[in-house]
Amino acid sequence: MKESLHLFKIGGAVLEDPGELEETLAFFSNLPGRKLLVHGGGRRATQLCHQMDITPKIHEGRRITDADTLEVVVMVYAGLENKKVVSILQALGCNAIGLSGADGNTILADKRPVRDIDYGFVGDIKTVNTQTLASLLEAGLTPAFCAITHDGNGQLLNTNADTIAAELAIALAGQYQVNLYYCFEKPGVMEDVNDPDSVIRYLDPELYVAYREQGVIAEGMLPKLDNAFRALKAGVASVEIGDRKALALGKATQLVWTTEFPE
Amino acid sequence: MKESLHLFKIGGAVLEDPGELEETLAFFSNLPGRKLLVHGGGRRATQLCHQMDITPKIHEGRRITDADTLEVVVMVYAGLENKKVVSILQALGCNAIGLSGADGNTILADKRPVRDIDYGFVGDIKTVNTQTLASLLEAGLTPAFCAITHDGNGQLLNTNADTIAAELAIALAGQYQVNLYYCFEKPGVMEDVNDPDSVIRYLDPELYVAYREQGVIAEGMLPKLDNAFRALKAGVASVEIGDRKALALGKATQLVWTTEFPE
Repeated sequence: MKESLHLFKIGGAVLEDPGELEETLAFFSNLPGRKLLVHGGGRRATQLCHQMDITPKIHEGRRITDADTLEVVVMVYAGLENKKVVSILQALGCNAIGLSGADGNTILADKRPVRDIDYGFVGDIKTVNTQTLASLLEAGLTPAFCAITHDGNGQLLNTNADTIAAELAIALAGQYQVNLYYCFEKPGVMEDVNDPDSVIRYLDPELYVAYREQGVIAEGMLPKLDNAFRALKAGVASVEIGDRKALALGKATQLVWTTEFPE
Repeated sequence: MKESLHLFKIGGAVLEDPGELEETLAFFSNLPGRKLLVHGGGRRATQLCHQMDITPKIHEGRRITDADTLEVVVMVYAGLENKKVVSILQALGCNAIGLSGADGNTILADKRPVRDIDYGFVGDIKTVNTQTLASLLEAGLTPAFCAITHDGNGQLLNTNADTIAAELAIALAGQYQVNLYYCFEKPGVMEDVNDPDSVIRYLDPELYVAYREQGVIAEGMLPKLDNAFRALKAGVASVEIGDRKALALGKATQLVWTTEFPE
């Protein structure tokens, strides 16, 4: 039987609330066995852009990353936020090691091709180096990824953290029984975004497509869910989505792989 | 016989010159066997402080690190500069992994006690975790350290890069034959700071003390040399100081351990 690996993604809003961040990292630290963390960005990069007179550009919820913006996100994601997360985890007794995809060549990406929109220095993941990740995990270390990758030719790339979590989970599923958690500020995927009691406890492809067609699930959740279902289909053992409390109580949304997506 | 380890420290001025940085990292990449890099800070942190309306404070060449300044140095050293160095090394085929002392708990430090001067969030190194470093090295990775450590209780600390290089060299000398290089913008320790032909080729403790008393060696070199001699005394196999070209040609300053320092 494969060894279990808990792969935990925390969102930007969790990072921005110091109390919630500490509680969430404490919960993560207490998960048994091998662990891996991925953290999102948060608004700090946008604030810093303003302080540096760089105008942030967003297209359909995705940041357009020009050269100046790339410098800012590398500073904030790989510097400030990654080292904050690592130092808190260390204080909690979790032997974290902060990584971008450039470190140990762990995540190799291609700069997204320019079609209708030039997203700038944004990476689409090509390869996950599972061998190096396994050697870190086997040395008792807990990798903590920020949302930066590289192209192998010296170019760093801004990369969506939800996608990083899904791709890491899929790549590591060959070697580990991977349990993937998307920890964000909501108790789960909800039927009514204003009603915390409306969490959808189990979501399978059929139900997802139906909800999506009815417009029940909030627009912003769709890329996260597409990533999550892709991971589940590719052999990740389980995927749960919710806030720290819902995840701890087993009351978050759990994805269920029953069938192919209906056409 | 112990395996050899090349431990290479590059200064801030090298980091600021893109061409020189690339050449220096290419030279480093081509060193045979196990390798470890430490990089200094450079002026970028000071520039960013200005952009963010933080007034940099320096006392006797050492930065006073208040909470706002710590955020900036973590962003610049651990984020921007460390990931730049790692991505260039990766492009050169060197499997670098960027680290602060918090990552893998590799360097534990104490916040410097307040005496005449409060240096703020500055760390004095307490412990180097050689076990984790050895497991990274044995996995074929090349650690690339920035000048940030932590106290193990969640506090990041700004720490002198020359001292980090010396302490890493000393700690790893138990397991490896460590060759320590301080690569900076001068061809070596010079008798006349304006004459590149005045490099002191061999420097032993007696000569160092004599030069120091005569005021021959530039003030700014003294802490670097104190660190370097301490490393040599503690069992580091060799220490050389100079620029990339002088180091490559074997024309840099080589420290020689002949005797105790004269009283």
